[in-house]
Amino acid sequence: MYELHYWPGIQGRGEFVRLALEYAGVDYIDVARADESHDGGEEALMKRMQGADLQHPPFAPPWLKVGDQLIGQTANILLFLGRRHGLAPKEEAGELWTHQLQLTIADFIVEIHDVHHPIGSGLYYEDQRDEARRRARDFRDNRVPKFLKYFATVLQRNPAGDLHLVGSKVTYADLSLFQVIAGLRYAFPNLMRSTAKQYRQVMTLHDRTAAEPRLASYFASARRIAFNQEGIFRHYPELDSAAT
Amino acid sequence: MYELHYWPGIQGRGEFVRLALEYAGVDYIDVARADESHDGGEEALMKRMQGADLQHPPFAPPWLKVGDQLIGQTANILLFLGRRHGLAPKEEAGELWTHQLQLTIADFIVEIHDVHHPIGSGLYYEDQRDEARRRARDFRDNRVPKFLKYFATVLQRNPAGDLHLVGSKVTYADLSLFQVIAGLRYAFPNLMRSTAKQYRQVMTLHDRTAAEPRLASYFASARRIAFNQEGIFRHYPELDSAAT
Repeated sequence: MYELHYWPGIQGRGEFVRLALEYAGVDYIDVARADESHDGGEEALMKRMQGADLQHPPFAPPWLKVGDQLIGQTANILLFLGRRHGLAPKEEAGELWTHQLQLTIADFIVEIHDVHHPIGSGLYYEDQRDEARRRARDFRDNRVPKFLKYFATVLQRNPAGDLHLVGSKVTYADLSLFQVIAGLRYAFPNLMRSTAKQYRQVMTLHDRTAAEPRLASYFASARRIAFNQEGIFRHYPELDSAAT
Repeated sequence: MYELHYWPGIQGRGEFVRLALEYAGVDYIDVARADESHDGGEEALMKRMQGADLQHPPFAPPWLKVGDQLIGQTANILLFLGRRHGLAPKEEAGELWTHQLQLTIADFIVEIHDVHHPIGSGLYYEDQRDEARRRARDFRDNRVPKFLKYFATVLQRNPAGDLHLVGSKVTYADLSLFQVIAGLRYAFPNLMRSTAKQYRQVMTLHDRTAAEPRLASYFASARRIAFNQEGIFRHYPELDSAAT
């Protein structure tokens, strides 16, 4: 039985792991979301992470516990789950290409987060709102188009067809790209409405993934935390483009 | 024969790959550093990256070309080289732990870069200097101590001894941590002088790595590009702490 350890109140980076586990149909315990008498809560999570007995301490949540093994860093957890549960090609070139895409998604996620926290992740948004406004302009005008165009190109060039990033089966990179689009739609609804048409393949991947039966049932369950203003994707109207 | 494709004028992210290749004693061509009649230069690099014939286009340099295979994303290239050249444990748990550390170093590198580019990577430093000053304060006070303390802890807890991050042999994560310390000393000399003592194991790793014969001869060669104000690590005195 896998244990996922992540902040209990947000989708955050943990969600990329949850999507892989849910899509693979694997049982897992979302430890920090249990009640406090069962190791739940943020305080217990932090305490475990800082435990002096950990030979391989994670730098930050999420981490996955598999028997005695702790695996940290979202993309690294997905590399592990991809092998175990058929969420990436088995041959090396395909495994590395999938991971390369995941790491590019990870770079995008950092930029999405830093739009609302350009000065420091430990400071309040309200204390860096002016800088956030400035960064958001560059993000909307340059970074979002660059990343979305890139993923659209990867889909177009997939010789197995433009429904998946890699080959003809769902990989963890598809699930992660779905999550990024879902998050961007929550955080930047105006921007996404006005640009969606330019990245048709990416939007189709999002919509098809949302409809995958195991994921659809996950989204309808209490296990899916709603997007909120504490996570990576936050809806601050002043950072979105104007409505058209 | 490996081909490394990276910006010719900076260490940048390519340097993490160069260090692995140099330490492993592997032959490679640093393609963009050749003269223009031999595919060198930035323009040819960009053109290759944007080639419509690439089935697996990289999002950005560096990438490694191995036969017909293109491998992008620094940490992914190191995952590949680690397997091929003994720069990471062969068993899965050790391979993943090494990669986890590399991805944490990658996170640190983004933060180091964004200190001088908090608003946008496509804008000049001079146009975001005020924001950079503010971000630098948070970086020096909170982020550098957090990352360096983490790596010191990992070294302390290594059951094979505190000279390496993983096991008793040099891994690509050691080489990358060396490079981060070398870069921080260039960019933030005052900060690093005043805090080095607190992270003794990390500084020892830096110094021992610098003295590895194959690396020492690399550093003395023209193949090592000097740190400069175009790379990840930049020395802007106004972003460093005051001299003590």
